[in-house]
Order: sequence, then structure tokens, then C-alpha cells
Amino acid sequence: MTVRAGIVVTGTEVLSGKISDRNGPWLAERLFEMGIDLAHITICGDRREDMEAQLRFLADEGVQLIVTSGGLGPTADDLTGEVVADFQGRPLELDSDMEAKIGRILEPLMKRFQHLDRDAVLEANRKQALVPRGATPIDPAGTAPGLVVPPAEGREGPTIVVMPGPPRELQAMWPVAVETDAFQAAVAGRPTYEERMLRLFGIPESEIAETLRVAEREMGSLDGLEITTCLRRGEVELSARFEPPAEATWDELERLVAERHQHALYSRDGTGVDAQVADLLAGHWVATAESCTGGLLAARLTERPGSSAYFAGGVVSYSNEAKSELLGVDSSLIERHGAVSKEVAEAMADGALARFEADLAVAITGVAGPGGGTEAKPVGYVCWCVKGTNGECIVRDTVLPGDRVEIRDRSTTVAMHLLRRVLVGEKAPL
Amino acid sequence: MTVRAGIVVTGTEVLSGKISDRNGPWLAERLFEMGIDLAHITICGDRREDMEAQLRFLADEGVQLIVTSGGLGPTADDLTGEVVADFQGRPLELDSDMEAKIGRILEPLMKRFQHLDRDAVLEANRKQALVPRGATPIDPAGTAPGLVVPPAEGREGPTIVVMPGPPRELQAMWPVAVETDAFQAAVAGRPTYEERMLRLFGIPESEIAETLRVAEREMGSLDGLEITTCLRRGEVELSARFEPPAEATWDELERLVAERHQHALYSRDGTGVDAQVADLLAGHWVATAESCTGGLLAARLTERPGSSAYFAGGVVSYSNEAKSELLGVDSSLIERHGAVSKEVAEAMADGALARFEADLAVAITGVAGPGGGTEAKPVGYVCWCVKGTNGECIVRDTVLPGDRVEIRDRSTTVAMHLLRRVLVGEKAPL
Repeated sequence: MTVRAGIVVTGTEVLSGKISDRNGPWLAERLFEMGIDLAHITICGDRREDMEAQLRFLADEGVQLIVTSGGLGPTADDLTGEVVADFQGRPLELDSDMEAKIGRILEPLMKRFQHLDRDAVLEANRKQALVPRGATPIDPAGTAPGLVVPPAEGREGPTIVVMPGPPRELQAMWPVAVETDAFQAAVAGRPTYEERMLRLFGIPESEIAETLRVAEREMGSLDGLEITTCLRRGEVELSARFEPPAEATWDELERLVAERHQHALYSRDGTGVDAQVADLLAGHWVATAESCTGGLLAARLTERPGSSAYFAGGVVSYSNEAKSELLGVDSSLIERHGAVSKEVAEAMADGALARFEADLAVAITGVAGPGGGTEAKPVGYVCWCVKGTNGECIVRDTVLPGDRVEIRDRSTTVAMHLLRRVLVGEKAPL
Repeated sequence: MTVRAGIVVTGTEVLSGKISDRNGPWLAERLFEMGIDLAHITICGDRREDMEAQLRFLADEGVQLIVTSGGLGPTADDLTGEVVADFQGRPLELDSDMEAKIGRILEPLMKRFQHLDRDAVLEANRKQALVPRGATPIDPAGTAPGLVVPPAEGREGPTIVVMPGPPRELQAMWPVAVETDAFQAAVAGRPTYEERMLRLFGIPESEIAETLRVAEREMGSLDGLEITTCLRRGEVELSARFEPPAEATWDELERLVAERHQHALYSRDGTGVDAQVADLLAGHWVATAESCTGGLLAARLTERPGSSAYFAGGVVSYSNEAKSELLGVDSSLIERHGAVSKEVAEAMADGALARFEADLAVAITGVAGPGGGTEAKPVGYVCWCVKGTNGECIVRDTVLPGDRVEIRDRSTTVAMHLLRRVLVGEKAPL
């Protein structure tokens, strides 16, 4: 049996394009993993009629589950709780346990902002403790509780899961909502799927498309596998969802991909390069030297908790003086080869090794644009060096596509992959 | 008269969350600027029934304009032209001028990829030259033409603007579509709006909500102003859209906000702190010293083209050794006060000033978590110092809410605001 769902993203700031929605895509992936068939995502502003119209539309389309995000704050334009309660025919009632919980959450905030009107804050937040009769409240990760709201007794229609707008809160509260009886009842009877993901780096998406055509030809068919490929941050992700009997077909496809893309395939279990590098860095002491990426690589290496165990530090040597003064790059080397050159990248890595007493260093220098490009070194031209104290050394350069933001981001991705190759001892070309 | 619109974003890869939609937000901003009231954005996969259902929904909601993106390619799952033609009751007909144009666009492509089957390509692309009878075709920016499709003669309903999915193509073709008679007829009689935005830092959203309540009480009403508040990256944005006669109401509201939130209100024209700091840094030479933010502040300061004119460089001194070795922070100071302390923040700023020969330095040290917190210095405790060679010096500490990602990001926002205050010579507390 197929279970169909819809997502309603609310918020005038999302509808108006002021902030881009992260909840729709995140929820879409969660529903997909659960074997729920997402039919529609709709986005509306903080307007009662529009929100009602979207709920009505999705109910008429026959979905069994609707997930809403946003509109749970304390202000008057936060309407979702009210609209959903009306839509499901369940009157709002004050949940005094929840009111007390929210009060405890707000206590430290009110201490910090002593000039706040205490009663006004509690009054505004009382609204957040209103729960439709018979609905299941979900404890807040911020200050706004979530809700799982089935239709009123005797009514037909979708169960509505009401989540707050801030992605961190929504993501923390979602698993709790999924575990509720009301949620499980709404999605009962859906098929069980297996999920797999391969990650590849260093080949265009069209190569994977070609491999899939070859697979269909050689294996007869890929029936039973729901395959998607996706280009993300310069990597190709090949994902499949399938019911358990198709597992052998998947295994065969995976073998074929591994055979055809031996060097590009770096992950068979879906783990990304960041996680792999973090694991591989155990016992190492790594430093960075960055120019065009301006600190993004250091920031990426320290994104994970516990990174202080292996990350010594980094230098953002944006100016030539900084390259010389902080990393000891010979200024005549810069004069001879230019600040963006393989030679300077290597000297930067040498400097980082020495200054941080590290055993591994990664250096990046490049032209992020939009200005500063030349015919020989156009915008997007970037040089990397990964060097270790045990004689490891990779130096690479290439021209990356995209705008300033993309070039900077892609440069850190290439750096992560070069670092990974050094750490696993791969000698293959990137 | 209000003109209402809807946007239909098509594409299974967008619906599934694999790629994030950039067309909805972009079109939303264009419609808003034109004074067209966007009511709904809907996203569906490449499924005929779902696309039809969304068009039907929007038509039933009474919108006068629908803009679709995606589904105009040559392959079988590109359905938009067909679905829209059916929906508007206008049969598809081959536009031979358009066919010739597409042929000329494909010519160089076919020369480059000699192995392509010429007839197959032309056949596939003939599909893209099909135009609903009486619709206005829009010349392609890639290979797919757009369409402006009014309802068939004698029918009621919205005019549908059909645009390709690739953002670059859509953005190039949109102005042409807007200029067509069919588009202008559909949106005739819309009002002209003014737009304003205030940005505030250092107060919770609930304070603004309270100010809006006070404004309503004191000013009688805020009728005529369409107000939204939005919390973004730790700042509060207060936006309003209004027809020209309501300008005086806005001015009064702005005065009230400025009076009540004198120190928090930092932008009356919508410019963000990054843009303001970039302007203010002209003629300066700034350096950073970061611990918990791991390079994010340097990355943020170098996000803009031209930042090399004022950004000298930065040190990510993640380890204590790096703080001492690269920034000259006295190790006894670290022992006495701890690496996360106002004293060490100031010493890091001193070090950055000296090492980069800068005239301004920003230092951050804190506990980003999830581990490493103590009772005295819990997760989220962060210290900043902004120091200049002309005696400017601000040192601050606070406990930031959120998880590791948010604490790191928020820390850079606070740093940007402290830097701004030093640059404009404000002495007020943050």
C-alpha cells in the first residue's frame, strides 16, 4: 500500500524568497527514507486563508499525512496551531504542563534580558502551550512545542504533524513526532525499503548516467531499484531505494559502478568525505594555510565536535605579506611564480607544517573572482598542496567552474579529497 | 486592485530534496517588486496528475497569474508544455520558426559531440518547438523556449507563464516574458508598493512583537502596512510593504522603533551588517584571531569580492600552542584565566594586530560544544575582543544559545556587530 504525504511550509519570509526553505527538502528526504510517497510541497505566507486552502488541497488529493513547518512562534502572525486545530475539528486547550515547560525554558532568557516585561513574555508564550484537544504535543527543542493532530473522531482525512520553522528545532523534534502512536497509525501499511548510497568524486554526472545505461543493457533491467543521481558540492551521489527482494540487483549494480569508477568511488556506505577524513585524522595533527578560501577549509575541518584532537590550527594568508610573515613563504617565490601557483601552495604547506608543528598540512591558493583573473590564471584557477612530515606530498591545480561562492566551496571539497587520499595512502590521480 | 499569483516548481529532484529550488525564491522577489501578490508556491514531481492538480488548485484560488518552472527538456518526463496546453484548452502546434531557431542553437553542440545521432537529437528537440495555439513563445536562453499561455478564448482563468528549470535560463528569459502583451494583460491594474526594511541586533523577536503592539495602541492602527518580522542569523528583520498613501504611517512606526530600540536598530535601509562593515573597512587593514569559530569569521569577511583591499589575514589558533606560537599569547595568561576568557581574547587581538601589521583586529574564543563546557564556562560561552591601533577596544562575553553550528555562526555575527560599532565609534553596550 502506498502512503502519500504533503508538506506545507509556512512563513511570509519563505514565500517571499527572503529566506530559503531548508525544511521542505529535509523532510522530503526523511519521508523518502520511511517509504512515504511525497506528492506535493506547498509554501504559503502567514495568512489563514492560504494555509487553510493548502491543507484543503492536500486533503482533497488524498494524502494520509501532512507535515507543516513554521508559524508556531509567540506573535500574532504565527497561526499554524490555530489553523490546524480548526481544520481537524479539535478545539485548542491550554496544556498547563506544556506551559510550565515553556516557562522553564524562558527563565534563563528572561534573566539575560532583565529589561524584558516578564508578564508580556509569559503571556505571548502561553499561546504556544495551546494544544488541540486529543492531539499529541511534542516537547520543544526551542520554545515552540510541536503537534501530531489526527482528524477529530469520526472524521476522515490526513493526520497533520505540526513542526516549528527553525531547522534545528524541527530536526530535533521530528524523530519524536515519528514515534508517536498518532503518526504511526497514519502511515501504517507502507512498504519497507532498503536504502543505499554511493559517493563519487572527480567525474561528471554524465559518466554515471552512461554507467546506468550500460548496467541496464548488461544486467537486463534495473527493475525494483528506484535510482536517483545527484550532483552536490562537486560530488556525485548515486542513491537507490528498493524493497528487500531487489537487493541482489543492487549488489550487481554496485559491483559494476566500482569496476567502472574505481578511483572516483570513495564511499559505499553513504558516509561523506568530511566524516571519513575526521576518522582518518585520529592520531594526526593537521594544519591549514589558506588564501582564496579565506578560512573555509579550517572552518570545515573544525565543524565536527572533537576536532580539537587533530586540528592544530590554520593561517588565512590573504595578503602576500601574511604569506611571508606568518608562513615563511619566500617573497621571491611569490614574485617568480605568482601568489597563485603550485610552488607557493607547497611553500604555504611547508610553512603550516613548521609553524603549527603539525604532521600534515593542507594549503590552498587560487583566484576566487570575480576580478583578478588573467589569461594564464583565470577566475577559478586554484592550487592545492597536501604535505606530511613522512614524505607524503600531493600538489594539484585546476580551473573550477562557478561563481565566487562556488569556487571557494569547491576548493575546500577538493582539499578534503586530497587530504583523504594522502591519509589512505592512495597514489591514484584525482 | 490586487493581482494574485502562484508559482509551480516542477521536478522530481526538487520535490525529493536532492536539489534545492532557486527559482521559487527568485520569482517571488520579482513578483513582489512588481506589486503582484504571491499567494502560493507549490512543488511537484514530474507527474502529470500532480502538476494538473496544482494548476487546478491555483486557478480555484483565483490567482490571475501562474508561473511554472521546469519540465521543458526534450525527454519524456518533461511534461509542462503539454500539461499547460491541455489545462488552458489550447492545442499544441509545431512552431516552425522556433524549430529552426532551436536547430541553429543545437548545431554547434552536435558538431562538438560528433557521436550524437543527429536525427534523434532534432526529433527530441522538435518537442520543444511545440507551442499552444495562440500562446506567445519566448526565445530560449538554453535550448528550451518559454511560453506565455492565456486561457483559451471565452474561458476564465489565470494566464500561465512557462519557464525552463535552469535558473540562468529562467532569469534571462523572465524579463522578455514580462514584456509580452499577454503577461501585461494578466496583471493589469495592480497597485504600486513601497518596501522598507529595518534590521536590529541584540534583542529577541518578542521585543519587536511588543513594540508592534505598542505601535498599534499609540498610533491607532497600522492599517495599510503589511509587516513581517523575521529572525535571521541572530538578527531581527522588520519589513513592511505598503501603498504610497501609507508612507506617513510607516515613518511614524520607524520613529517608534528607533526610539524604543535605539541601540539595537542598526540599519534603516535594509543593508546587512556584512555590507556595512565592508564599506566601513575601506582604508583599514583588518586581521582575525579565531578559536571556536575555526576560520568562519575570516571566511565571512572575505565572502565579498574586493575584500583583499582591507583583509590582511587571520590565524585559527585552535590549540593553545598555536595561540602562543602564532599570536604570542602568554601561556601563563592561558593557565591563569583559561583559553576561553576575555583576557585571552584581548591577547589574541593584540597578537593579530602585531603579526599582520593591521590597524584593527577581531578575536573570538569560546566553547562551541557539545563537549568542553564547565559550570563557570558552559557550552555557548564566547569571548570577543575588537581592538584597534588608535586605542579602540571592546571586550565582551556572553553565553549564546543553540548547537555547535549555531554557536559558531552566531559568534561571527556578534563579531561583525562589535567590529561595526568600533568602526562607527559607538560606545553603547551591545
